[in-house]
Parts: sequence; structure tokens; C-alpha cells
Amino acid sequence: MTEGTAARRGRGRRPAAEVRASVLAAAGRILLTDGLRAVTFDRVAADAGSSKMTLYKWWPSPGALAAEAYFAQVNLALDFAHTDDLRADLRAQLGSFVRWLTDEGAGKPVSELIGAAQMDPGVAHAWTESYLLPRRELARVRLRAAQRDGELREDADLDVIIDQLWGACYHRLLVVRVPLDDSLVERLVDQALYGAAPREA
Amino acid sequence: MTEGTAARRGRGRRPAAEVRASVLAAAGRILLTDGLRAVTFDRVAADAGSSKMTLYKWWPSPGALAAEAYFAQVNLALDFAHTDDLRADLRAQLGSFVRWLTDEGAGKPVSELIGAAQMDPGVAHAWTESYLLPRRELARVRLRAAQRDGELREDADLDVIIDQLWGACYHRLLVVRVPLDDSLVERLVDQALYGAAPREA
Repeated sequence: MTEGTAARRGRGRRPAAEVRASVLAAAGRILLTDGLRAVTFDRVAADAGSSKMTLYKWWPSPGALAAEAYFAQVNLALDFAHTDDLRADLRAQLGSFVRWLTDEGAGKPVSELIGAAQMDPGVAHAWTESYLLPRRELARVRLRAAQRDGELREDADLDVIIDQLWGACYHRLLVVRVPLDDSLVERLVDQALYGAAPREA
Repeated sequence: MTEGTAARRGRGRRPAAEVRASVLAAAGRILLTDGLRAVTFDRVAADAGSSKMTLYKWWPSPGALAAEAYFAQVNLALDFAHTDDLRADLRAQLGSFVRWLTDEGAGKPVSELIGAAQMDPGVAHAWTESYLLPRRELARVRLRAAQRDGELREDADLDVIIDQLWGACYHRLLVVRVPLDDSLVERLVDQALYGAAPREA
């Protein structure tokens, strides 16, 4: 629980940015291993070797801290590839996202976070601002480049593509509540690119 | 709150199916007007003119009752059109769904229900069994007919289409947390049918 962090104690000495990073890392670890309910200011402060007062000063609630910590963890785990092949890049990114939710166990904490956001405006704000909007922008940048390169039509609606790709994964996770599998990714990407109507239509 | 329902009291006299229907109607009304937290066994029993014991016997929790009641309300509100034009039918159905979530105010109670399902297995079970799977089957039936009629390719993945259409709406509601608008529907349906890649590809 406090693996080696006690040794780093020494309040007031570390620069704020470093404290912040270690708090986010500790909160992210706790969230991903033990779930949202385990992310308390007490436990995060102990794990990060920081004071609880600092946490109260910087985050309105443990849920808001957890949402921001989740973004930090995801950014380490989920790179957005940018080759000259959009289809391959989307498959790679969505494939990593699905494995992150399944094999790497993020599905439960993510669904808890989004669940909490539906009732708690503080979590909702932190989720949207700290996680969702920055990640959505990364996807937009990749799709915009594809549009410039002629891999997407000029009139393609990039936000709708994002909603249909990542939204479908969240839909299975949160709403339908069925397991996600790797084969889903290929089908999602092809369907987003080529549609389901007969080709000659 | 108990509009006219007290007059219908007369415990033990009404057939079980009738009591069940009036309990579901009362719970659905409360859910859609006052949100998930307002759906308590006390209030539903009072509104429906039934005994609280009956509710405890039939539903494991108020959340599970709310999920089942939601299905009953949606089935009244959201018909699935079946003409010979899939694109028009999908636009009509998704258009009603979006208006149901926005103008008719179901967005908040729905997101609360799905939010609660992420933490509460009883709500999750009731949501999936009583609402999601039956509605998903209605969509599948419509898409299967379209596939038979040649409006969808033989190799089209019907579940992926469902995830991309309704999933995109839920994604905006729950994950991105931005307003849904009517223009979204047209873009979603066209994107699902024709994809975003250049047509000559």
C-alpha cells in the first residue's frame, strides 16, 4: 500500500509539481487496482507521502482527483499512433483501448468513474475537463489529418466518427454490459469507414 | 403525487397483474419527473395504492424497480417504425429517442439509472434484463429485415450498427456529457450506412 513512499516523506520540501505528480500516480494506482471507492484522501495522502491538507486544497473531492488521475494513467498507457494509414492507426488505438478496459482491468474503475459522474457534478466536471475533452481532441487531430490526406471524405463528421468508435466501446461497457473483445475493433473501424449499405448504393 | 390513486385502494382485491402495472406506472412517473433518488418503495406504494410488502416481494431494490419501470415507459413512448425504408425508420426511431432524452426530460433519469448500474449489481441486472436486451432485440429485428431486403450488406454486423447508432447517443449523454441535438440523428444514420471513407475507395 505504501510501497517505499514513506521513505520519500519530507513535507514542504518537494516542488509542488512533483507532489502533484506523485499524488496523481498514487490515486491512479489505487483506482485501477482497488476501484473508485478505495480512492480516499487518507489513503492517497499516505501512499503519496503528501499531506491531506494539500489534497483538500487541490481537489474538490476524491472523485475529482480520481478522474484526473485516470487521465494521467491513460496517457501513459494509450498512445495515439500516427502513420499514413488511418485504418491501421484506428485499429491500433481502439485495440489498445479495448485491452486497457479488459486485460488491463480498467473497465471496472472507468465504469465506476462514469457512473459516479452521473450523480456527482464534481466528478462529472473533472471527468469531462481532465479526461474526456483532451482525449477527444487527440482523436480529432488524427482524424483531421486523415481528412486532409483524403482518407476521409471532406464532409465526414469527425465528432460523429469519434462517437461511433469509442462510443460503441463505452456502450458495450456501460449500457449493454457485455464483454468487449478484440474482434469488435476491426468490425467497428470498417463499419465507420465503409458503412453497412450495399457498396453500389 | 397520489393523483386519484388512493381512490383505487382496496388491498388484496386487484389482480396481481393490475397491481404490477400500476406500480410500474407510478415508479416510471416518479423516475421521469423527480429522478432516481425519488423512487423509494414508500413513495411508489403510496402513489400506486399498493402495499410496501408487495414491492419488497417483487423487486430486490427500488433501483431494480426503477429500471423495469423505465422500460414500461419507453415502450409506450418509443415505437420502432417498420416501413420499407430503413434510413427513414432509423431516423424516426433515433429522432424519437433523442427527443425522449432531451425535450421529454428522460436524459437525467436515464443517466442516473445507468450510473447506479455501475455500482449496484441489482440495478445492473434489472437494467440489462428488463430494458436493454428487449430493446436491442427490437432493433435487431428491424435491421435483420433490412438485411433480407438488401438495404444492408449480407456481411453487415447488426450489433455493431446498434452500438454505433444508439451507443453514440449514450456516449454523448453519459461520457462526453454534451447536449444531443436533432441534427445529430441524420449524421449518425448516414455515417452508419455509408461510412466516412471516400466513396470511390
